[in-house]
Amino acid sequence: MININTLKNRRQKLANLINFPVVLWSGKSPSKNFKANHYPFRASSHFLYFAGIPIENAAIKLENGKLDLFMDNPSPDSTLWHGEMPTREDIAREIGANSAYPMEVLKDQIDDVATIPVQDIFTYEKQQKMLQRSLSINKASKEIDNQLMKAIISLRLTHDETALKEIRKAVNVSVEAHKIGIKSTKKCSTEAEVRAVMESYIISKNMICAYNSIVTINGEILHNETYHNSLKSGDLLLADVGAETALGWASDITRTWPVNGHFSSSQRDIYDVVLAAHDTCIEAIKPGVEYREIHLLGAKIMAEGLVNLGILKGDPETLVEKDAHAIFFPHGIGHLLGLDVHDMEDLGDLAGYEEGRTRSDRFGLGYLRLDRPLKAGMVVTIEPGFYQVPAILNHPQFKEKYDQDINWDKLKQLSDVRGIRIEDDILVTETGTEILTQNLPTQAENIEEMMR
Amino acid sequence: MININTLKNRRQKLANLINFPVVLWSGKSPSKNFKANHYPFRASSHFLYFAGIPIENAAIKLENGKLDLFMDNPSPDSTLWHGEMPTREDIAREIGANSAYPMEVLKDQIDDVATIPVQDIFTYEKQQKMLQRSLSINKASKEIDNQLMKAIISLRLTHDETALKEIRKAVNVSVEAHKIGIKSTKKCSTEAEVRAVMESYIISKNMICAYNSIVTINGEILHNETYHNSLKSGDLLLADVGAETALGWASDITRTWPVNGHFSSSQRDIYDVVLAAHDTCIEAIKPGVEYREIHLLGAKIMAEGLVNLGILKGDPETLVEKDAHAIFFPHGIGHLLGLDVHDMEDLGDLAGYEEGRTRSDRFGLGYLRLDRPLKAGMVVTIEPGFYQVPAILNHPQFKEKYDQDINWDKLKQLSDVRGIRIEDDILVTETGTEILTQNLPTQAENIEEMMR
Repeated sequence: MININTLKNRRQKLANLINFPVVLWSGKSPSKNFKANHYPFRASSHFLYFAGIPIENAAIKLENGKLDLFMDNPSPDSTLWHGEMPTREDIAREIGANSAYPMEVLKDQIDDVATIPVQDIFTYEKQQKMLQRSLSINKASKEIDNQLMKAIISLRLTHDETALKEIRKAVNVSVEAHKIGIKSTKKCSTEAEVRAVMESYIISKNMICAYNSIVTINGEILHNETYHNSLKSGDLLLADVGAETALGWASDITRTWPVNGHFSSSQRDIYDVVLAAHDTCIEAIKPGVEYREIHLLGAKIMAEGLVNLGILKGDPETLVEKDAHAIFFPHGIGHLLGLDVHDMEDLGDLAGYEEGRTRSDRFGLGYLRLDRPLKAGMVVTIEPGFYQVPAILNHPQFKEKYDQDINWDKLKQLSDVRGIRIEDDILVTETGTEILTQNLPTQAENIEEMMR
Repeated sequence: MININTLKNRRQKLANLINFPVVLWSGKSPSKNFKANHYPFRASSHFLYFAGIPIENAAIKLENGKLDLFMDNPSPDSTLWHGEMPTREDIAREIGANSAYPMEVLKDQIDDVATIPVQDIFTYEKQQKMLQRSLSINKASKEIDNQLMKAIISLRLTHDETALKEIRKAVNVSVEAHKIGIKSTKKCSTEAEVRAVMESYIISKNMICAYNSIVTINGEILHNETYHNSLKSGDLLLADVGAETALGWASDITRTWPVNGHFSSSQRDIYDVVLAAHDTCIEAIKPGVEYREIHLLGAKIMAEGLVNLGILKGDPETLVEKDAHAIFFPHGIGHLLGLDVHDMEDLGDLAGYEEGRTRSDRFGLGYLRLDRPLKAGMVVTIEPGFYQVPAILNHPQFKEKYDQDINWDKLKQLSDVRGIRIEDDILVTETGTEILTQNLPTQAENIEEMMR
């Protein structure tokens, strides 16, 4: 399952970029109710990138292309509860480590190493204690940490074949999960039931969800994580569900479909606008293109479509310049995908933003998670959406600013369109794109067909 | 859904036991890959007991039967991502709070209050900073904390009607999940597929799993949390899966069934021994009986059965006295069940063990999680098991000590019995017991019948 050559390659590539040693911790599973009732373990993505497999309570030291593994052997007592576990030597062999030591040896080898803070606070405290310096989550605390972050970002921005194989695996399972969700909806009476059908497929393939699923008739609540609503004929259901492989690689897919199997004419009108933006953005992807331009292109197609439907008034380009599109499409067109669903978001905008660039304070650009020129080997999502968010539409400031741009009467006729998003995972290739999620239909008529 | 009278009752009962103010924090969801990709939120059980509903980043002050709520209103930005959220005032009304304040007010009201540390380390650090004293997870750091823990334990040891209603809800969903798992197994080809079917039912009812499911053909690995094995005819599948309600109340059920629908004669022999222990223990439960005696009774019935099968040799009582039963049944007969699957295990043995008692160092008793006289209103699990744990059977020390007690040739004939456990949830009533999980068959023939 693990490709040691790939791992050694990644370690060597890191060595080509920096000239100081690095220690990366894997982390541990946080406890939920009490110590033995814990959340499932999820290793730090930076650790996974170089070590290949999730090992709890471990650390790796990377130096000159070599990897030393630090972990304790399972205690005899743990054999009773957890069975025969691989020893340190077994794991060292499996991941192609150059040496392997008990954890306590690490503290003598830790002078002047660079690191990246893990997400679990327990290990994070341990990191700081061992290194005898404080670490800030989200940003570098020391110049070598900063250099390390940049080096890792430059590696993880584009994917090797081993990574792509894993991402494809995750994508394929997610595609099937969505197909089953779409096909089962007419038999389901609640959001929770559709979620169950979709996640069940992911669990049956021995994968986990890469993020908390969104399965909702209130698609306008962008990060909705509740599933208590009943499904009613006439509702649209928005499902943003993605699998993650056992080695930690993610996928991220959204589809929106009508609960009763038929888009109403207003739903279909808006769906086709979102789909036009989706398709146009994907067609525009190729190496060298600025992702920010893809975002603005998506915004323009959305604005054009909404003007054609009589919902927005005026010239599409001018509307985008004044961020009128963002009334209905308030988030970014997408993000990097890899070991994390928003890849390397633990490093803040250092990963998503090209050096020297910062977040725009424009309403229609500030939520963009990625602002870099595209490169072959990157995987990005494209996920335009249309939402009627009460917090935006009823906001006095927005209402005043955009009052003349919106045909409010026309908008009232769209009360059955609360939220639509269409999201695919796109590999940037030398010549353009490969839509990794291409086996999942996007066209409204194909979705209706699947529901028949 | 929430019964304010029950909550007020619990608050008043606490006030009857202690004469100092208490602050309990709810906690927050730990981040997984990065801040926005977090584990699902699970509120501290002590907070849930008095506040009734999970509210992230909140605290309650309990004094003289009154409850003050401390939480910040959702930020305007969060409305965009999370929709209209209830305000502090809405929540205060919902949970019957006497007053409600922003979080920052708490630090002026926190002198000399008792508390219990939460499990999430982020909030735990905050607790310590606010209280300006250090807290140890698992034990009281100050005398008033100790008194608080004992007071809460005395309340949570037995359940009011509101709690029982929630536990019954969780149990009923788990019972159905097990039925579906049993009925679907012949169509499944991996552990992961059976897990998916079972958890899917729980998700479809908008509940979560109360703990990480065990669904394994290696039942001898007691806390097995992997699901990668294929199912082969002749395997037994052990499934320990339980639902938790939206308000946090747990259930905990285990069944073991043959993958092909028929117990082999060796599997059936051992199954019936475990079931005899299970049934005898449940029949012995009533107020006043020591749970430790139930455990020893289970051990004796197991030993008797194994002697009858010719696997153990000698007098059952003598075998139990020397812990020979624990070779095959190395864990305790069960535990408390409530808001936590091992209820109040965050307080260590302060909850599970009657004052003045400590863990036995006997191999056959030391893993017992509960050592108290039973009282009406308690909910406990009864979960005897038989396992062939290589770490025990091959352990030189055990091998030597028990060599004469075991018929090793006979044992060899049981190679298709790796692990069997049968676990039910039992309410202690004034007159004896109510088996909350009674709608799920335990008899081997009934399970075979369900699989037909």
